[in-house]
Amino acid sequence: MKVSQLRTPALVIDADGLEHNLKTMAAALPGARMRPHVKAHKCTALAHRQAQVGHRTFTCATIREVEGMAKAGLGEDLLLANEVVDAGRLSKVDARVTLAVDSEATIEAAAAAGVKEVVIDVNVGLPRCGCMPDDAGRLADLARKKGMQVRGVMGYEGHVVGLDDGETRARLCEESMQLLLAAHKLTGGDLISAGGTGTYACNTWANEIQAGSYVLMDTTYAKLGLPFRQALSVLTTVISVSAAFAVGNCGLKSLGMDHGNPGMDGAMVLFCSDEHITFIPEQPAKVGDLVRVLPAHVDPTIAYHERMHVISGDDVLDTWEVDLRGW
Amino acid sequence: MKVSQLRTPALVIDADGLEHNLKTMAAALPGARMRPHVKAHKCTALAHRQAQVGHRTFTCATIREVEGMAKAGLGEDLLLANEVVDAGRLSKVDARVTLAVDSEATIEAAAAAGVKEVVIDVNVGLPRCGCMPDDAGRLADLARKKGMQVRGVMGYEGHVVGLDDGETRARLCEESMQLLLAAHKLTGGDLISAGGTGTYACNTWANEIQAGSYVLMDTTYAKLGLPFRQALSVLTTVISVSAAFAVGNCGLKSLGMDHGNPGMDGAMVLFCSDEHITFIPEQPAKVGDLVRVLPAHVDPTIAYHERMHVISGDDVLDTWEVDLRGW
Repeated sequence: MKVSQLRTPALVIDADGLEHNLKTMAAALPGARMRPHVKAHKCTALAHRQAQVGHRTFTCATIREVEGMAKAGLGEDLLLANEVVDAGRLSKVDARVTLAVDSEATIEAAAAAGVKEVVIDVNVGLPRCGCMPDDAGRLADLARKKGMQVRGVMGYEGHVVGLDDGETRARLCEESMQLLLAAHKLTGGDLISAGGTGTYACNTWANEIQAGSYVLMDTTYAKLGLPFRQALSVLTTVISVSAAFAVGNCGLKSLGMDHGNPGMDGAMVLFCSDEHITFIPEQPAKVGDLVRVLPAHVDPTIAYHERMHVISGDDVLDTWEVDLRGW
Repeated sequence: MKVSQLRTPALVIDADGLEHNLKTMAAALPGARMRPHVKAHKCTALAHRQAQVGHRTFTCATIREVEGMAKAGLGEDLLLANEVVDAGRLSKVDARVTLAVDSEATIEAAAAAGVKEVVIDVNVGLPRCGCMPDDAGRLADLARKKGMQVRGVMGYEGHVVGLDDGETRARLCEESMQLLLAAHKLTGGDLISAGGTGTYACNTWANEIQAGSYVLMDTTYAKLGLPFRQALSVLTTVISVSAAFAVGNCGLKSLGMDHGNPGMDGAMVLFCSDEHITFIPEQPAKVGDLVRVLPAHVDPTIAYHERMHVISGDDVLDTWEVDLRGW
């Protein structure tokens, strides 16, 4: 199949960029030093590629992702790095599942559901989930008392991963990780799990990194000067052209917009509507042209799509289902 | 089934609010004066409710929506209010389909695909699709020459529908519609199709209104003081609580974010992550609580969800597939 035969808007992955990103991360953080976060791509076919380059432990954000990864034969060591109340669903999953807990309530929900292993989720500065560092020991004791094994701690420095300035990013990452290490002293266990694409290189305190975006990238992470290539774009057909601008057939329902407008090479994006993108092209465009739109945020972009196509030049090499969507 | 048994995050529709919105619009713009836009809800079950209150003509934004509406028996008069290049797919649809065209290229694509009826899409101020008003006659002649019937014009005043000030909205709506009426003089045909939820009442120049959001509403349209109720919310489970804030399990993958953060009654939303919403509740929250999050933009919110649940108090009355997603 040729790229020109794809129904648009279509998520496409540049095969060379993908392979470059896989190899670069596997060289930097081989094997279990990297626990890829599947929330970024929600695609077990892509997770299989990550496993093939050596990462056989994975991070998930939802129970659905855990279920799908287990079904795809990738359940060797899954960390559900999020609190859940309906943990009972995990009892039906045929995989090694470790669950994040940060409160008595989530520990009780985990125990009641028969969860065997947990990590204590620690707030390291991002105002989201996680206990206070000095409460981690109490929660670990409680989890053990309930019969669960405590594998260690996790703490996501999400307020740091996107900072433009590399030195500031590294300094604040260290501050966050000192909090996590302090909590780890109280909990014990083997795992110190943290990190993201923006801190994979500077976070030398965690012993595994939960990066997700690196494998496909987006325009927001591209600004940080990381050694990963933008492999993901939304293939779009030009449907209208006027004197001042052109319009393509992707929009708010094919692009995550929380990081602002997407980018385009050789064009300035004006705005997006539900099924439109209005842009000013440097070279004249015509109706029927195919153009590439570069998402500003990979995760919520992919979550809109049923499938993505791996392409090389004009050829579609493979089509992968985005099979971990929903909840 | 009870609301407390729903798997979260879940789209829920308040049954009373929905009925109020349906009745209010059907009273204001009965029958074919209103051509509901299905892009807002992407749900044929909900479109059936709109048909039951008298609207049997519909607006679609994608070929997939046209296909799904036809399959659901709602193909009496479908307007695909968007330019498409791959019009050939429409030849397999068993419905009356009228296609928007705005250029020689889209007219040729329509003719080649055997499309029988078109409207000339006119740019009335929104920098998106649509020909210049004075070019509408030439395009109508071309379409007729190619053997297609020209049913009239459409022109969406999308730059106007969201303006806060009602008088300004009405004034700019009139300016836009004067452009559309000028174009209509050049094209002929019965249809003068335009409008949205923000201009359904003041747009007295178009003879049919393409509103979509009115039936479920969002926090952005709620600011305009329209007589429609916010019927849509995302049911969310509190998964973590700290001294300063609480965290629920909905986020960037269950909420369209182009209009900014969602709202919550009795809480201030701080920010959203992929699967989290961090908020400051007025009353203490606890893990396991169910809270309602009010989307800022209905269309891209619904497009993330597989289904929506119609609820009344604690009861789930019905579950509807969001069956018009994708392309």
